[in-house]
Amino acid sequence: MTTTPEIQETVLNGVNVTRLGQTIEAIRQEPELAQFKFRTRNQWDLGTHNVATISDFYGTCQELQHKAPFVLNADEPPVLLGGDTGAGAAEYVLAGLSACLTGTLAYHASARGLKIEDIQSEYEGDIDLRGFLDIDPKVRNGYREIRVKFKVKGDLDEATVRELLSKSPVYDTLANPVRIKIDVETA
Amino acid sequence: MTTTPEIQETVLNGVNVTRLGQTIEAIRQEPELAQFKFRTRNQWDLGTHNVATISDFYGTCQELQHKAPFVLNADEPPVLLGGDTGAGAAEYVLAGLSACLTGTLAYHASARGLKIEDIQSEYEGDIDLRGFLDIDPKVRNGYREIRVKFKVKGDLDEATVRELLSKSPVYDTLANPVRIKIDVETA
Repeated sequence: MTTTPEIQETVLNGVNVTRLGQTIEAIRQEPELAQFKFRTRNQWDLGTHNVATISDFYGTCQELQHKAPFVLNADEPPVLLGGDTGAGAAEYVLAGLSACLTGTLAYHASARGLKIEDIQSEYEGDIDLRGFLDIDPKVRNGYREIRVKFKVKGDLDEATVRELLSKSPVYDTLANPVRIKIDVETA
Repeated sequence: MTTTPEIQETVLNGVNVTRLGQTIEAIRQEPELAQFKFRTRNQWDLGTHNVATISDFYGTCQELQHKAPFVLNADEPPVLLGGDTGAGAAEYVLAGLSACLTGTLAYHASARGLKIEDIQSEYEGDIDLRGFLDIDPKVRNGYREIRVKFKVKGDLDEATVRELLSKSPVYDTLANPVRIKIDVETA
């Protein structure tokens, strides 16, 4: 009987730190593995109700599928003339920011061997609808400011939390300009 | 028997155009009605899994509640060391953009009396993980570019579609910098 040598894997905060280290080393060797393309399709229903579906993406040099498609209903509340059947567009953006900051903290704290007991956070962003409604051209259409409050329990001090949060891809996506190219076909 | 005079309401593309016009007029008279604050709370679970909850917001000079809280599970796929139990953070951002561009088109086309038969759209955004993983400091952490394809059936020509899409709050939020203030409490 032969025994296969196995590498002992370290998991901290639910993150497989051994595989994280292997992933980073593989990307250092072959930067093309780091190129990801995330995707969404959207189908309008009626009024402010529309449905986004997320099923596939590209990464590590291959086309990949989620286990099952994620179907996200978007709508607006009655005060914005909608049926309130799903979160609003601007709320999905805050949810994405919250998921990214939280996940970034979990990844990078784990890579440094820092134990996390709990992470809670709150988000509030200001939109002045006079921009969107063409009432005042000096008012910007999107978020003017987003405020975030983090409560972290574990081995991390405030400076470390701030340093790790600053690595978040969605934080960068919102804090800095992104080039958006739109193609339009009408019938 | 008395009859109550009623205003006939016009609904186009599922948008109550009469109420939309009344809303715009009310905001012109009282700009404070246009100040909205959208919110999210996030609770980390384990590893890359966390849960965003959206339940209340502020607008039209009052605190408001959604009919029911919207609970959004966020996770990452196995290739990013997650359990794939929900859409990823960067995918939620694309979903928010898709909801906003689609909803913006529906609102503004309706306000102009343009009938829409169908709106479909596709989104793809590029992230180079060498930024997030601290492998190359010259690589940005967030989306480098987002490409969007719109297919619109109805009374709108391409120039009108482009003009209306440009009003989207989330488009502006992503295309232009947003100030993000982060408060951190550790224990």
